[in-house]
Amino acid sequence: MGSGKRTVSDVGEAGLIARIQRHVRPRGAGVVVGIGDDAAMVRAVAPAAVLTTDMLVEDVDFRLAWASWSDVGHKAAAVNLSDLAAMGATPRGLLLSLALRPDTHVDDVMALVRSLARVGERYGAPLVGGDLSKIDGPLVASVTAIGEVDPKRALRRHAGRVGDLVLVSGALGGAAAGLAALQAGLATPLHRRQLRPTPKVALGVALARTGLVRSAADISDGLARDAMHVAPRGAGVVIDTVALPVDRGVAEVARRLQKDALRFAAAGGEDFELVLAVAPKDVARLQTLARRHGERLTVVGTIVKQPGVSLGRDTDLEAFDHFRT
Amino acid sequence: MGSGKRTVSDVGEAGLIARIQRHVRPRGAGVVVGIGDDAAMVRAVAPAAVLTTDMLVEDVDFRLAWASWSDVGHKAAAVNLSDLAAMGATPRGLLLSLALRPDTHVDDVMALVRSLARVGERYGAPLVGGDLSKIDGPLVASVTAIGEVDPKRALRRHAGRVGDLVLVSGALGGAAAGLAALQAGLATPLHRRQLRPTPKVALGVALARTGLVRSAADISDGLARDAMHVAPRGAGVVIDTVALPVDRGVAEVARRLQKDALRFAAAGGEDFELVLAVAPKDVARLQTLARRHGERLTVVGTIVKQPGVSLGRDTDLEAFDHFRT
Repeated sequence: MGSGKRTVSDVGEAGLIARIQRHVRPRGAGVVVGIGDDAAMVRAVAPAAVLTTDMLVEDVDFRLAWASWSDVGHKAAAVNLSDLAAMGATPRGLLLSLALRPDTHVDDVMALVRSLARVGERYGAPLVGGDLSKIDGPLVASVTAIGEVDPKRALRRHAGRVGDLVLVSGALGGAAAGLAALQAGLATPLHRRQLRPTPKVALGVALARTGLVRSAADISDGLARDAMHVAPRGAGVVIDTVALPVDRGVAEVARRLQKDALRFAAAGGEDFELVLAVAPKDVARLQTLARRHGERLTVVGTIVKQPGVSLGRDTDLEAFDHFRT
Repeated sequence: MGSGKRTVSDVGEAGLIARIQRHVRPRGAGVVVGIGDDAAMVRAVAPAAVLTTDMLVEDVDFRLAWASWSDVGHKAAAVNLSDLAAMGATPRGLLLSLALRPDTHVDDVMALVRSLARVGERYGAPLVGGDLSKIDGPLVASVTAIGEVDPKRALRRHAGRVGDLVLVSGALGGAAAGLAALQAGLATPLHRRQLRPTPKVALGVALARTGLVRSAADISDGLARDAMHVAPRGAGVVIDTVALPVDRGVAEVARRLQKDALRFAAAGGEDFELVLAVAPKDVARLQTLARRHGERLTVVGTIVKQPGVSLGRDTDLEAFDHFRT
């Protein structure tokens, strides 16, 4: 029997950790202690550490029928790095905890781990530690990302002001249309937007450094929900749906599935773009900065006194809730 | 129906987060951003951040038949803080991710969260963030702890030298005897050692500051396994079993269950004491320091050239392996 068919039960916890240590060697001067001590240690120069964590549960947050193990590792890293990007923090490291069934193939686990580590390294956050446990149930991958930022420059939620313009990076709707296409068995390049999202790390860090962004969040639950996060508490956002930058290919998927393209873009979620509140006078300067990073920032709305997010037409955009769907 | 019977499905993800935010208000100047932004932010003055994570899976790492939800929260915090203690790091914050069945009672979740937050606060590590997901399977609690340390003073594994003495803090065997008693339905105060361990945080930080500890680890898998962690790679440890400080009550539990008390102390695990390698000339000074912290350090062995841990008698002490038990 080839090593490809070995299970985690065959190699044991220690054998699996040894494989991970062999294949994942955190690089970079920032890592003082990597995998194999009581805890990991990363060098930090900024006066504040930024921390975020996301837990992905099989058949709730991903399905191995659609996503490869490598996809799961990629996404687990990316969603956490996106949260750091939304704070304007520079990534420094990742931790990965896995709950695995004993009959899980070692090669599958390693595909997940290596993909996660690769995405982390790409953004300056090597895999420095983690934990393994057994589970008689769905696979669980829990990732923590650490970054650093000058607290005075950090991008915060709910810090926009009435009259600020609301901007989004990139284009929206691709991840949700990609998911709908996966569910319907429809081929489209948008699968990748759903399975292997790109966190806007360099853009977030660059925006934070300008000091011109009043408020920011990432778009994980859909613009209709996440735009609220840049408005001050008790205020709201009016979205100009005509202005929304919609991902290439969303219209076609929507047409073929007889769905609403705008709904994908405004409420679909998981695009992991940034949503910002910016004073009108600073918009052009930030758009120029974004272009220098190969990114684009589009004005999609305004912060208003009236609470809630208004999309300028009747739309029933219920937000995703883990325990109610 | 009283609120005590409400499930997480009744209140939803947002309702549960709101409850956690109401009940858990991270205190202390160290918390710049707590629960409710894209990521948490904690102030750090030392040049290195220390990170550790542990994932607890129901019916693998704990059983709700023995442990209350509050016990699970306590232990999840303590095991992570113990890893920071073993590095000599000062705790700064905790993150908690939970995968919950929709029919889980809100009061049970809150008992876990509040207990974890309380233990964290006690050691300077408030609960600053986390994530919630749904699971059709066992409860999963994944905790990350962050601390800070001067990298030059950090306590590392595998840094002892041949001839160093091996010391342990506190007393051993209580957690394993407590577990055996829980399994057998035998009443003993040692249940608490198993369910609500005490991480040796202040001791770890004080020891690191002396610069006199060559190497350290915490005892989670049992001394017979964890003593290896303070020996240089390729070397070993001889344990003087007569010298082992055995927890009060272990002998009685062992007698009543017809088990070996020494086995509990030497190989039982989960005591979350510290094991150290120290040059013989520095032992007395460190013991005095420990007494000032209300702790005790006992010499239990020596680092030797021969690889492996020798207990000075024939003992079959198989180490715990998640995928092989």
